[in-house]
This record gives sequence, C-alpha cells and structure tokens, in this order.
Amino acid sequence: MKRKRILSGMQPSGPLHLGNYHGALKNWLALQEDYECFYFIADWHSLTTLYENPQLVRKYSFEVAVDWLASGLDPEKCTLFVQSRIPEHAELHLILSMIVPVPWLERNPTYKEKQTEVKGVDMSSYGFLGYPVLQTADIVLYKADLVPVGIDQAPHLEISREIIRRFHSFYKKVFIEPEAKISDIPKLNGLDGRKMSKSYSNAIYLSDTEKDIAQKIQSMFTDPARLRRTDPGDPDVCNLFPFHKIYSSRETQEEIIPACRTAQIGCGDCKKKLTQSMLAGMAPILERRQEFVAKPREVEEILAAGTKKAQAIARATLQQTKDAMKL
Amino acid sequence: MKRKRILSGMQPSGPLHLGNYHGALKNWLALQEDYECFYFIADWHSLTTLYENPQLVRKYSFEVAVDWLASGLDPEKCTLFVQSRIPEHAELHLILSMIVPVPWLERNPTYKEKQTEVKGVDMSSYGFLGYPVLQTADIVLYKADLVPVGIDQAPHLEISREIIRRFHSFYKKVFIEPEAKISDIPKLNGLDGRKMSKSYSNAIYLSDTEKDIAQKIQSMFTDPARLRRTDPGDPDVCNLFPFHKIYSSRETQEEIIPACRTAQIGCGDCKKKLTQSMLAGMAPILERRQEFVAKPREVEEILAAGTKKAQAIARATLQQTKDAMKL
Repeated sequence: MKRKRILSGMQPSGPLHLGNYHGALKNWLALQEDYECFYFIADWHSLTTLYENPQLVRKYSFEVAVDWLASGLDPEKCTLFVQSRIPEHAELHLILSMIVPVPWLERNPTYKEKQTEVKGVDMSSYGFLGYPVLQTADIVLYKADLVPVGIDQAPHLEISREIIRRFHSFYKKVFIEPEAKISDIPKLNGLDGRKMSKSYSNAIYLSDTEKDIAQKIQSMFTDPARLRRTDPGDPDVCNLFPFHKIYSSRETQEEIIPACRTAQIGCGDCKKKLTQSMLAGMAPILERRQEFVAKPREVEEILAAGTKKAQAIARATLQQTKDAMKL
Repeated sequence: MKRKRILSGMQPSGPLHLGNYHGALKNWLALQEDYECFYFIADWHSLTTLYENPQLVRKYSFEVAVDWLASGLDPEKCTLFVQSRIPEHAELHLILSMIVPVPWLERNPTYKEKQTEVKGVDMSSYGFLGYPVLQTADIVLYKADLVPVGIDQAPHLEISREIIRRFHSFYKKVFIEPEAKISDIPKLNGLDGRKMSKSYSNAIYLSDTEKDIAQKIQSMFTDPARLRRTDPGDPDVCNLFPFHKIYSSRETQEEIIPACRTAQIGCGDCKKKLTQSMLAGMAPILERRQEFVAKPREVEEILAAGTKKAQAIARATLQQTKDAMKL
C-alpha cells in the first residue's frame, strides 16, 4: 500500500533548540519511518519576521539543515528541501491569492497576536497577512495527506482546507484536503522556566558545545521555594525535573525525587546529574553535528537532491492547477 | 545614447476596443519609435476580476496580442511578452510582499472603489488588495525608467515608488524608481455617450467586422436635444463628433458642422459619413487583424520570442534582488 504523504516545514529563524527538537523534530524522526515525508526549510516564511535582516535567512537555513541531519532526519527516508529554491511556491501563492478573501486572513488570530507579540518588527506586512496563502501553496503542491500540528495549531490548517475547498468549488478537484496529524507533545520550558525561545535567551541549542550545555544547566532555575540547601524541594514544580524525565534513567529519577524532597541532595548535585544525563543523551546529535558542520558541501548536496525531487512534484501540481483553471 | 526604457501592460480582460486603442495603444505605437519598450499581457492581473472564469484569460490573451499586432506594435521595435510565463514576477511579488505594510494597500483608492464598482465579482481578494505589489514587481524587474500613465493614474505609480524606496532603505539600491510618463489622452466615449467599456456594451472593437462597425455607428446616440430631422443640432454635444474629429478629414468636419447646426443634414447622413471615414481609417488594422488571426502560430512565436528576451532581464534583476538581500 502506498504510504501516506506528510509535509511539514520549519522557519530558519535561528538555530534549533531543545524545544524545537522535542516539540517537533523528534516527531518528524518517528514519522519518517512510516510515512513519505517532505520536510522543508520555510525560508520565504522566515522573511515575514526577518525582512530587515534577510542575510540571517541564508545563515540559519544552513544551521537548520545541519540540526536536522544531526538529529537523525535521513535523506534516504525523507525528502529535505528549501522552499525558496522552488519558484512554484511563489507562483501558486500568487494564483491562490486571487481567490482568498481578505477577511479570511484578517480573522486569523495569529496575524493579530503577532502585531503586539513580536517586538521591534512591524508585523503588518502584506506578506505576513497572507502567510496562510503561502502555507496552503506549500501543502497542496506536494499533495500532502497529513500535516503534523500541535493541538493548538489545528486552526492554522483549517484556513488551508477552506482555501482548497474554494479552489475546488471554482474549478475542479486537483488538490488533497490535508488532515491534521495532531501530536500532543508537551512544551519544553527554557532555563528560566518560561517557554524555551530564542527571544528569551533561555534555550539550549543543538549547536551548543558540551561546555555551553553544562554552563546553561548550572544557570537553570529550580524550585523557587527552595531558598536554602537545607530546605526540602519539590520536583513537581522544579524546572529541572522535566529535563530529567527526558534524559535521566528511571533509576536516577527515582533516586532524585525522594532525595530532593528530603533535602538530601541540593540543586547543585541535581544539576550535575542532569548534566551527565543530558550530555550522554545529546552526544550522538552533538557528534553528528560536528561531522555535518565540517562537510557543508555534503549538506548542500542533500538539500539540492531533495529540492530537485520536490520540485518535480511541485511542477506537476502547478501544471495541473493551471490546467484545472484552463489558464 | 541609450534609449530610456518603458514598461506598460494591459490586462487581457476582453478584446480591445477603440477606447483602448486611442487611450493607450496609439500612445504605445508612438513610444516604440523613440524608446526601448516592453509591453506585456498582464494575465495575472486579469485574474483579480476573472478568477471565476480563468479560461477567458487565455482566450483574451490571444485576442489582445492580435489586437496589438494589428494596431502596429512591431516586435522588431518593442518587446511583447506574457507576464504569467515569467515566474520571476511571482517570485519578486512574494519578496516585495514582505516589506509592504498592509495599510499602504488599504489606503489605495482603487481597491476601495472597485469593491462597489465591479458588479457580480467579489473584489475583496488578497490578490487584488496586493495588485500594487505585483505591479511594482512588473516594473522593477525590467528596470523601467518610465511608465506611461494617464494623468489620473499618477497615484498608482506613486505606491510603486514608495515600495522601491522602502526596499532601497532596507537593503541596497537595485531598482530604478520609475517616472510617470503622463500623456493626456482624452477618453473616447462609447456608442451611448458613456465611457467606452466592455461592461456597458457600448464599444467598437478592433475585432469587429466592417458590418459590425457600420451597424454600431447606426445605433450611436447623437445630440439628445435634436428630436426631429428638422431641428438644428449641436456638434459640440453630439456623441458622433469626437469620432469625426479622429477619423474624418478636416474638410468633412468643416462641411458637417454648419450643416448640422442648420439642419441641412440629418444624423443619418452624418452617420453615413462617419461610417465611411471610420472604415477607411480602421481598414489597415482590420486587414492586419485578419492576417494575424489566420496565423496563430506566428502570433505565438512573437510572444515566445518577446517573453524569452524579457525573462533574461527579469532573471538577472531577481538575482540582483536576492544578492542585495544576501538571500
């Protein structure tokens, strides 16, 4: 039986951190085993925020590709490509723009939220208003059956489905109306307990060195009520513990919990243990990352091959689109 | 000295009529003698109104090309091309979309006017809101020095100039800020005295037969105050007279004016004279049109050659754009 096709992208708005890894990339790794996956570097999308510093887009695109490969995305199993190298995205975006009513886009809560949420960047651009149009082009060009989304992102896909239905009602059925593949992955907080994010400077990156990581763990917030070494702590509210859950063995966790609650160990001890577990857990990624960073040409070849494969599909879909419209 | 470059386009929203011919095309004919002219079939733009009937775009694109060639646009002198065949328009449109604030587009009076003016078509599409962005891409891709506009259309160019300045302020100077080449060409009214327009069914087309034209002239409104053959008429308010001014000899005009004012001739006589003059004046166009209609392959070759030439320029400009942004 033909495997279902999955499409997903990431904006190259910075190097990837553990929030991206556990929130999305690990899911991608699992999906590449069972589905025909197309993963793309959404560099056009990243211009919606980086338009004043577009030189960063190229830099981050390389970083993201290296992060992907280091994490274990395997070009033998999935197709990795770069959005901006496939002009069909821009063409289909323009075609779809003609049938999308502006009010559909104005109603999009993300558009409104980002106006105040993103500091120091004017987010009122025409391109950002229309990002769901570009997103729809991204999805339908590859006839994706499924789009992995977090449970809170399902509405993002709904507008694409509406645009697709509108296209089909005007012309004829060409596209696949993609289903959301909802994966409920808990958000990983950052060093300070807030959501892990580049803009909060609270992130651990896949591109960090072992020394960086050890230092960052040292600086992590723990149980805010545990003021003294002799105070008992509470792993349930400690910012460290979710990391232990991911990286430390069950044994270590079962050792830490009572020791923390009875103040037998201090936060420093706990951080040392976490450092050990995390460095061990992240070691394969850090090692592979070093290898790929040293071979930029190979990274480029992987992207070039994936882009070539993706473009063949995109070109065929665009032609079908034009045929359906009798353009 | 290098000739200045001119860019202009027409939407293939229908076959061209005398309003288009005298209002724009005759000006294009003059310009091709002195400038390096790029004239394009703005088929993406025509989707802003024809999106529910896109099959008409292809049909009308051919009609418009034939009308152009019949009118005397000479592919040896100017470059004729088709917008949608050059994906660089869509790509640059997408890039520019990232730096154009939505309020600039919302302020555009044309966008608001068309919401009520165009009947039976929802003009609130994202693509129509953004037509000045696409228009800017059209212009800058060819580094046009001048854009011919009617005196009332100068604001349309101003928004393109603003977008260009914004691009230059963020990145570096790549584009040419085009100047308006204002030509004050009086509007030609239609058979019923209203502005000549396809949607008023009051137009004489370059694709009309001699018989069509003769019949249409028979149906023309004249001086509304001249109710009877014996009433004196007034050429200054008669809807026929502007056509005489264009097509009839000075002699004929000087003969008609007093004869009309003194009721020596009736409107029927006057229409006969106009029919003679117009058929004579339009004969070269009608003849050439027959020739080109019979040679669709030649028309296609002309467009293909022009498009190839235009695309080479567009491609170079798009690359410069990306280089300027370090993308």
